[in-house]
Amino acid sequence: MKQIQSKENALVRQSMKVAAGRDKARLLLEGVHLCQEWLARYGQPESVLLRSSSSAQPDIRALLNHTDASLHYELTDALFNAIATVQAPQGVMFVAARPIPAPVARFDATALWVDRLQDPGNLGTILRTAAAADVRHVLLSTGCVGAWSPKVLRSAQGAHFALDIHEHQDFSQIRQKLDMPVYASSLAPGARSLYEGVLPGACLWVVGNEGQGVHPDILAQADQCLFIPQSAAVESLNVAVATAILLFEQRRQHLTPC
Amino acid sequence: MKQIQSKENALVRQSMKVAAGRDKARLLLEGVHLCQEWLARYGQPESVLLRSSSSAQPDIRALLNHTDASLHYELTDALFNAIATVQAPQGVMFVAARPIPAPVARFDATALWVDRLQDPGNLGTILRTAAAADVRHVLLSTGCVGAWSPKVLRSAQGAHFALDIHEHQDFSQIRQKLDMPVYASSLAPGARSLYEGVLPGACLWVVGNEGQGVHPDILAQADQCLFIPQSAAVESLNVAVATAILLFEQRRQHLTPC
Repeated sequence: MKQIQSKENALVRQSMKVAAGRDKARLLLEGVHLCQEWLARYGQPESVLLRSSSSAQPDIRALLNHTDASLHYELTDALFNAIATVQAPQGVMFVAARPIPAPVARFDATALWVDRLQDPGNLGTILRTAAAADVRHVLLSTGCVGAWSPKVLRSAQGAHFALDIHEHQDFSQIRQKLDMPVYASSLAPGARSLYEGVLPGACLWVVGNEGQGVHPDILAQADQCLFIPQSAAVESLNVAVATAILLFEQRRQHLTPC
Repeated sequence: MKQIQSKENALVRQSMKVAAGRDKARLLLEGVHLCQEWLARYGQPESVLLRSSSSAQPDIRALLNHTDASLHYELTDALFNAIATVQAPQGVMFVAARPIPAPVARFDATALWVDRLQDPGNLGTILRTAAAADVRHVLLSTGCVGAWSPKVLRSAQGAHFALDIHEHQDFSQIRQKLDMPVYASSLAPGARSLYEGVLPGACLWVVGNEGQGVHPDILAQADQCLFIPQSAAVESLNVAVATAILLFEQRRQHLTPC
């Protein structure tokens, strides 16, 4: 296996850049679980980084057996830990090319629009929830936090690889490609209760920024604004929680009983 | 107003201890919103810490007007920022005594048991969701992350003050005080779909550790184990998201249509 001991090594420098979010074409996958998920969906990564002291760990050995030996690089513990973005790294990382979703001509199955979200943990949880609700396309507005940072990847637990994630989207352009209505989450007057009436089998759900919610320009283009009936004890729900309640209420209404 | 310029000052040392979670009798509230929520529920705190350069901010002035001037301490920016646990503190903090919930003889309204949860952000989101679902009592098992750390307080956005939070609880003891069934979240075989059948108007919901779920000993004492029907695209839902889907499905079933 190739050994790397210098921080001037090109792969180390590239990995540092990816970890810091300064390489927009690549992503860094930390830990066995995320690497496994990548392999299952996309196959071989660009490089496999291994921490010297972890190279004998059984779960890491098993992962290495599923990747080409020509991609393996063993790093000193100090170098590996300097790249890692978690406090207690598991000892294996993939560097891979960010998947680019195929362009979509028309949207006719439930999709999710995320408006100017700021918190990486919230975005990761939303992606994980969307995948669990069988949503395929997630559309992120300009101004959203990046979807491929190590924090978002960690929080989504592999959900990225079950989704088509479209970043830097313009709502008006997507609006013209919809063969389904737009349902927006809103606490503004005039919104209808989620628990009143029937949800469509397919729609574009719109959820928004942690503090400000969905932008008024987008609310104005929604076919329906919905609120989640909650106690007055707190001002609002966390946006990832609200997204989950919306997506799973639709799922409940349209799932064939099993 | 009293001025503090030395890091040896007793209040500074105490506040540092509270911020680090080493004072189990007190809590630190950072920012205008959390301080306002405290005032609304509990009244005056023990101390009000003010950052020198922020003392003229209108929202902070307004907050000061609602607190006793004898409790105000103006700290140099360096001292204030050293106590703060956020990167960009707003310039005001309360130090207050942790509320101690009154002992409960019998539980007969929906409550939440949280088993060995590890992530402060998850716990905060769960507390915020519980308050939004009109749950009053949240019971935390031994082994749960502390409920009153600055991270949990921030993530819960004031929900702590709408709840009775019981820490370090023993499940078997609580089980004997229940006038309602136990419903546990579980992905194990034998669990029933959340969307099958009717939920009780009141129950103790049980949710569990991020990786391991609810402890088998507790599952064995549950009246019903439920799973949330999700796509196979991801292994599981985030625990705070799962809690929200459970609590709000019960809320949906039992809310009078508005």
